[in-house]
Amino acid sequence: MTDQRIAIIGLGLIGGSMGLALKRSATPPTIIGWDRDSQVGEQALVRGAIDRFVEDIQEAGTANIVIVAVPVLAVEDIFRSIASTVSAQTIVTDVASTKSAVCEWATALPCMFVGGHPMAGSERHGIAAARADLFDGATYCLTPTVTTPKGALDELTALVQSIGARPYILDAAAHDRAVAAVSHLPFILSSALVDVASASSEWAQLRTIAATGFRDVSRLASGDPRMHRDICLSNEAQIRPWLLQTARALEEIAESLGNPERMQQWFDQTKAVRDDMYKQRDPDDQRSNT
Amino acid sequence: MTDQRIAIIGLGLIGGSMGLALKRSATPPTIIGWDRDSQVGEQALVRGAIDRFVEDIQEAGTANIVIVAVPVLAVEDIFRSIASTVSAQTIVTDVASTKSAVCEWATALPCMFVGGHPMAGSERHGIAAARADLFDGATYCLTPTVTTPKGALDELTALVQSIGARPYILDAAAHDRAVAAVSHLPFILSSALVDVASASSEWAQLRTIAATGFRDVSRLASGDPRMHRDICLSNEAQIRPWLLQTARALEEIAESLGNPERMQQWFDQTKAVRDDMYKQRDPDDQRSNT
Repeated sequence: MTDQRIAIIGLGLIGGSMGLALKRSATPPTIIGWDRDSQVGEQALVRGAIDRFVEDIQEAGTANIVIVAVPVLAVEDIFRSIASTVSAQTIVTDVASTKSAVCEWATALPCMFVGGHPMAGSERHGIAAARADLFDGATYCLTPTVTTPKGALDELTALVQSIGARPYILDAAAHDRAVAAVSHLPFILSSALVDVASASSEWAQLRTIAATGFRDVSRLASGDPRMHRDICLSNEAQIRPWLLQTARALEEIAESLGNPERMQQWFDQTKAVRDDMYKQRDPDDQRSNT
Repeated sequence: MTDQRIAIIGLGLIGGSMGLALKRSATPPTIIGWDRDSQVGEQALVRGAIDRFVEDIQEAGTANIVIVAVPVLAVEDIFRSIASTVSAQTIVTDVASTKSAVCEWATALPCMFVGGHPMAGSERHGIAAARADLFDGATYCLTPTVTTPKGALDELTALVQSIGARPYILDAAAHDRAVAAVSHLPFILSSALVDVASASSEWAQLRTIAATGFRDVSRLASGDPRMHRDICLSNEAQIRPWLLQTARALEEIAESLGNPERMQQWFDQTKAVRDDMYKQRDPDDQRSNT
């Protein structure tokens, strides 16, 4: 990545962490940064996530690689803003949580495009929460389009590896189906748990008794509401079937609660699936709960 | 607690940790232990969780305080086994996850009884997972019955404090309503997430992409299936309404996914509730997710 000029547009948790992680890599690139809030840009400079803050977003479009790190529903506007300064040699990527809409919007850009989505984050957000190791070991989805040249995909694959993540290439539609199940369904379940429990007239007592089990299952409810909202809006069609299927599963379990064989079989099976998934993967997965 | 003889019946995660925690306290009592598996008893001895292993469960009934630490559906049999050796001076308690049935069974015991439920645990189980600090800072529910003498409640309150936990006194029915929402609903949601996602024909891809959000929300699915089954069987009537209410919430959200105001309001509200609950309580609550 030496001699590359990289622009990061949006210096929040993900954009800021990208900058810090790139600067930590073996061959740190020169990074220019843009944010709609210049104070955020200053913090990014102080933290060493970028080399220079640019006031004019069009200047960001002149870099070799442009990383658009804004919430999914803000991506289209950013693409419009840089459309006149990117060239056929520019590689543009994004980090948004859903990919179909973004890949569609990118067709209007006169440059090479690869969708991106690091499977890492935090319920904290903003540049203050940025960390150089945020992507260490994380899966990083790359979604090339039908027009993406192989060279651009190779370049981004190398960039993803340089920040410690594991590139995973798939098409945008498959990505959106998958994250609806393993990312969007979980955060909606988290919020639904908080919603339902806190609606109780005995909530004061409930929250006193709640232990680490409740804490962990509800954790994603503390995430960024705007990001969650945007994800729901942009991936509605993929998320809805998972919600309805989960509602059916809960109704079915509600009917089976008194059936020892059925319940034993259900918990045995879900434990086997989950244990297989995380075997030897999570030393910190054995924390206390209820 | 000096000069007290305490018996722990069932030397798994909770019973073993109780022994270790009591032995760590300022005035460690003498502890005798019983388990249906004598090899577990030997491990408890080696780990210092008990002072002596007794083969005969009736001998355990002769202690001053008897802690029954077996899964909820095994408690009734244990009560029958010690009924002939406990006396009016004996204090019996248990650690089971639901309290109404246990308190009912305890009426047949000719001794003082206080139900107990430490809001701590792990998805690991067995004596090997026992830890002296398992209860540190945890809420520990105590459910006296109408016949519990104040002295017995005071004595167990002191015991709970001596192992580092915070006693919380409430009646058995209120306990069972509360844990249905904050403990049982979460583990069923965890298992439902694993069940629904893993039923997908694209599960191989889904599990590759799954990040810490899925990992945390699904964590309780790795818990002990028998314990979860027993909880469902013994608290069926309290759990069912929460499951149906959550199913309704998911259906309602499925219909609202495309509504920006509604989704923003929902995520704002659930975040506010959850943040308020955990403010300054969980330094380790800010880990990475998706």
